[in-house]
Amino acid sequence: MRQTFDDHADPSFGSRHLPLIREQLRKQGLDGFLIPHEDEHQNEYLPDANERLSWATGFTGSAGAAVVMADKAAVFVDGRYTLQVTQQIDPALFEARDLVDGGVPLYIEEQTTSGQVIGYDPRLHSPDALGWLQISAAKSGATLKAVNDNPVDAAWAEARPAQPEAPIHPHPAEFSGEESADKRARVGTAVAQAGADAAVLTAPSSIAWLFNVRGGDVIRSPLPLGQAILNADGTAELFLDPAKITADLPAFLGNQVTLAKPSELEAALAGLKGKRVLIDPAQSSAWYFDALEAAGAQVVRAADPCALPRACKNVVEIKGTQTAHARDGAALTRFLHWLATEAQTTLPDEVEVVSKLEAFREATGLLKDLSFDTIAGAGPNGAVVHYRPTHKTNRRVEPGQLLLVDSGGQYLDGTTDVTRTVAIGEPSAEMKERFTLVLKGHIALAAIRFPAGATGSALDVLARAPLWNRGLDFDHGTGHGVGSYLGVHEGPQRIAKAPNMVALKPGMIVSNEPGYYKTGEYGIRIENLQFVTEASAVDGGERPMLGFRTLTLAPIDRTVIEASLLSVDERAWLNAYHAEVLAVIGPQVEPEVRAWLTDVCAPV
Amino acid sequence: MRQTFDDHADPSFGSRHLPLIREQLRKQGLDGFLIPHEDEHQNEYLPDANERLSWATGFTGSAGAAVVMADKAAVFVDGRYTLQVTQQIDPALFEARDLVDGGVPLYIEEQTTSGQVIGYDPRLHSPDALGWLQISAAKSGATLKAVNDNPVDAAWAEARPAQPEAPIHPHPAEFSGEESADKRARVGTAVAQAGADAAVLTAPSSIAWLFNVRGGDVIRSPLPLGQAILNADGTAELFLDPAKITADLPAFLGNQVTLAKPSELEAALAGLKGKRVLIDPAQSSAWYFDALEAAGAQVVRAADPCALPRACKNVVEIKGTQTAHARDGAALTRFLHWLATEAQTTLPDEVEVVSKLEAFREATGLLKDLSFDTIAGAGPNGAVVHYRPTHKTNRRVEPGQLLLVDSGGQYLDGTTDVTRTVAIGEPSAEMKERFTLVLKGHIALAAIRFPAGATGSALDVLARAPLWNRGLDFDHGTGHGVGSYLGVHEGPQRIAKAPNMVALKPGMIVSNEPGYYKTGEYGIRIENLQFVTEASAVDGGERPMLGFRTLTLAPIDRTVIEASLLSVDERAWLNAYHAEVLAVIGPQVEPEVRAWLTDVCAPV
Repeated sequence: MRQTFDDHADPSFGSRHLPLIREQLRKQGLDGFLIPHEDEHQNEYLPDANERLSWATGFTGSAGAAVVMADKAAVFVDGRYTLQVTQQIDPALFEARDLVDGGVPLYIEEQTTSGQVIGYDPRLHSPDALGWLQISAAKSGATLKAVNDNPVDAAWAEARPAQPEAPIHPHPAEFSGEESADKRARVGTAVAQAGADAAVLTAPSSIAWLFNVRGGDVIRSPLPLGQAILNADGTAELFLDPAKITADLPAFLGNQVTLAKPSELEAALAGLKGKRVLIDPAQSSAWYFDALEAAGAQVVRAADPCALPRACKNVVEIKGTQTAHARDGAALTRFLHWLATEAQTTLPDEVEVVSKLEAFREATGLLKDLSFDTIAGAGPNGAVVHYRPTHKTNRRVEPGQLLLVDSGGQYLDGTTDVTRTVAIGEPSAEMKERFTLVLKGHIALAAIRFPAGATGSALDVLARAPLWNRGLDFDHGTGHGVGSYLGVHEGPQRIAKAPNMVALKPGMIVSNEPGYYKTGEYGIRIENLQFVTEASAVDGGERPMLGFRTLTLAPIDRTVIEASLLSVDERAWLNAYHAEVLAVIGPQVEPEVRAWLTDVCAPV
Repeated sequence: MRQTFDDHADPSFGSRHLPLIREQLRKQGLDGFLIPHEDEHQNEYLPDANERLSWATGFTGSAGAAVVMADKAAVFVDGRYTLQVTQQIDPALFEARDLVDGGVPLYIEEQTTSGQVIGYDPRLHSPDALGWLQISAAKSGATLKAVNDNPVDAAWAEARPAQPEAPIHPHPAEFSGEESADKRARVGTAVAQAGADAAVLTAPSSIAWLFNVRGGDVIRSPLPLGQAILNADGTAELFLDPAKITADLPAFLGNQVTLAKPSELEAALAGLKGKRVLIDPAQSSAWYFDALEAAGAQVVRAADPCALPRACKNVVEIKGTQTAHARDGAALTRFLHWLATEAQTTLPDEVEVVSKLEAFREATGLLKDLSFDTIAGAGPNGAVVHYRPTHKTNRRVEPGQLLLVDSGGQYLDGTTDVTRTVAIGEPSAEMKERFTLVLKGHIALAAIRFPAGATGSALDVLARAPLWNRGLDFDHGTGHGVGSYLGVHEGPQRIAKAPNMVALKPGMIVSNEPGYYKTGEYGIRIENLQFVTEASAVDGGERPMLGFRTLTLAPIDRTVIEASLLSVDERAWLNAYHAEVLAVIGPQVEPEVRAWLTDVCAPV
């Protein structure tokens, strides 16, 4: 069993750890300290050693921050975690605040006074993020001070886990579709076009993609933690802990890639003196900028040059993820069959649901990891957007409830992410109406054709309009990018209310996951992955259009659909989708499951 | 007759005027010169004296630019003008280029060489616009140089018209709904909140709104050309040509507003030494920034503090514009009746169409001006997005054609802007299909409910999705802000593909004008104005939503609608709209027109 159901933290963390942190602040003469969720690698998922926010506060969400002052402290979370945070932190010690609306900058402006010194670890903050904080500190007259010794790490001391040392393996061309030398040549050209001699790459996903390697330093993502300097001519220096280097790696990397130790990075940056060096101020931490400026390099601030080519999957990657989705879809379909039959009478709890689904995925024999801890939310737990069942929160499903299951698998040929919401027993009329509104939004975003240049922000409303017109909405993004046996959340494209300037391009994979959440009662989310492709020509059409092709293949529970609310076109989409599910998944599953699948994929 | 049908420029302008401009460049030792469409006031519509781009090139569009070098020159236009520009400039002298894709910056980068000096008039460029140009010049090694004597003005010399001196009148509270002192107090507070002691206002629309005055310096907009310094305490200095000040103006402005001459502006800016001064780098020209920095003022770069409050109309302004739209709708309905009856057999030409419509508006007795020159495009001329008929381009309508008429009126109580596309004789099946696709987009954008925070960019796709899904699109924005007896194009909100960060707020007026254009054959556009308001509650709705209420009242030609393509909800919207048109317009018009209106407003 890969997933566990223990709490990694609890509300007592605050009372146990805050005094230790405050003692370190006194020692360093600091009035406060910033604790972001992000670590040195600006990852979403962290090795245990870098779970500083959780250790300091008890809050375990995948995004957030804290500010610790001598006499007060606050934890900042976004809309996904407003319910969860209240259960995880000690309200006597921490104020819970909105990460987005005002966020840390507003807190700094309001809660610091002139002359106060607030420390930060320059390895943990990007210059873009620091800029806002510095403006806010200036308003109150406080100053931000970079500190070399992180007070949280000092307070954590012996109890802090070791940094991971997972082996790093080649990711062969049969999965990557492009040799590292070719990637380095074209990214190097882009670096030169941006006016730079070299680029410093610090995103583990960029290291993984550019060098065609995969590691295991971070749970749920096969990321190798490391850094690289890529020269415009395609040669590179790659900084990896020698303990992680597997025997076949040096030969696989070839003689254009020099392997070096992490301890040699600072000297290598100093060696860039006089060079024009591209680095991403939204991705790489301030520490790199300080080091490059100290070295006398000329910093070129620009987006990570691997981000866009990594996002646009090549034909081998697309074929791979289609194969992965067909395999994963069969596992998920077996699970949905179990939910629709046996589970309707045995009424399993969430832990049993998660275990069952993991077993079906494990049985494929090709599962490398889950893409993320499976969310299984029965009844009211479904309304907690980023819920993860634990032994403490575990609920048994009940007739008349909805069960929301959001899950995914990491396979060598692709990464999956899918949400299905199914009825246990008979759903209410309201549940059916809301489910159908969510489905209408999902279909509008799946079926849209759009011209080159359109961004995810521009398409977001399609998934929300049916809800908005009924006075409803959901408080999370509509879609995120997904990697190819890499992170399940991957930029730079995004489908969300928040403005995003990145145009959707052929080969990009995005999720399509509108939802509806009724606090204390139930949650609904329908999520497929889809990729951008050239749309087929339409009779009378004049302009080339892009469109989406759906990757995820698993039935959508028709017992929660109010078919009278669907238009002719929407029914046609749903029926065509179910026909494809049956055609691809049917032959893979057992006769009993196939018979059930044939039934639930019948046209509405 | 307000509108004329003469060409203000012709392709010979280039051969007659370029040599004069190049002579001035030689005298000033410049290798090139930038000629933006914008003038000192960054207006869309210009007094004749400031039509520098048109005088230099022959191009008369409402946006664009030119670069004149010693041996080459280029004119830059956006998608609305790509057809028009080829008819207006001499291709032997000017290359026509895209204003948006690369635009002037790319040209500077490509076409200048190291050491060259390109001049610009700092009064005509905002610092935001200059920033891009400076980056591009740096790439080729050229430099941009601010010049005091504009070479175009020097070349134009005696032939250049005088600056306008139209009288400036009070705009009373019965129309403005808020006294200037109250506006100045709340904008002054906003200036203080932005950390400034004073704001320099250079947008004529801000001067007009803040001081409740209207002028006539610019055709089609009652704008007073001038500048102001607004202090945080609400007092102000207003710089206006004394020749324009009407007798009752000083008393109306009161003793908190000091009137000064334009020649005193430079000294007044110098007097801001040591002060924190807010000024808008996207709106005000570089000249002001240079003057403030030379004076030793501390420049606070922020959006014009009048822009947002001006955009959010108060209840008096909304009531006024509804009255204006009812009046204007009656005039337009009489015109549409004439088009649907008499004109179907007399087959007028475009000039006659424009004249007829202007006569109906003039007959209201309250028309102050047109909002813009009426666009009447018969057949293929309808496909020229920003077409204006001239004696040279004038076409007679023919049976089987569509006629596109985009027009508006300026009234003391409001500004209108409406487009109707009507069939002459029997439209083709393709025309009906395309018209209905445009109508579907129009209805989706009229009927949408949305949460606070949504921007026009986020809603834009609603108006395009029906076209996109058929492989079609249109190359202009979907909606622009509209003033209250002010500019018919007014920011800061906008509904367009281009990202816009301004949330739609109650009281904002926007146009809703999707279209479809088939080059050489016909053009379709359906435009109503609508304003943002709180949406009525929906059964089961959980969140407050905003929505639009339509202002424009005139029938949409049902003979071009393919009703089978409309959904039940779309039909309901159309029938409700036509019922409102009949209820408000019917009682105002003659029995014959009313009978016709009753017929064309019947439910589909």
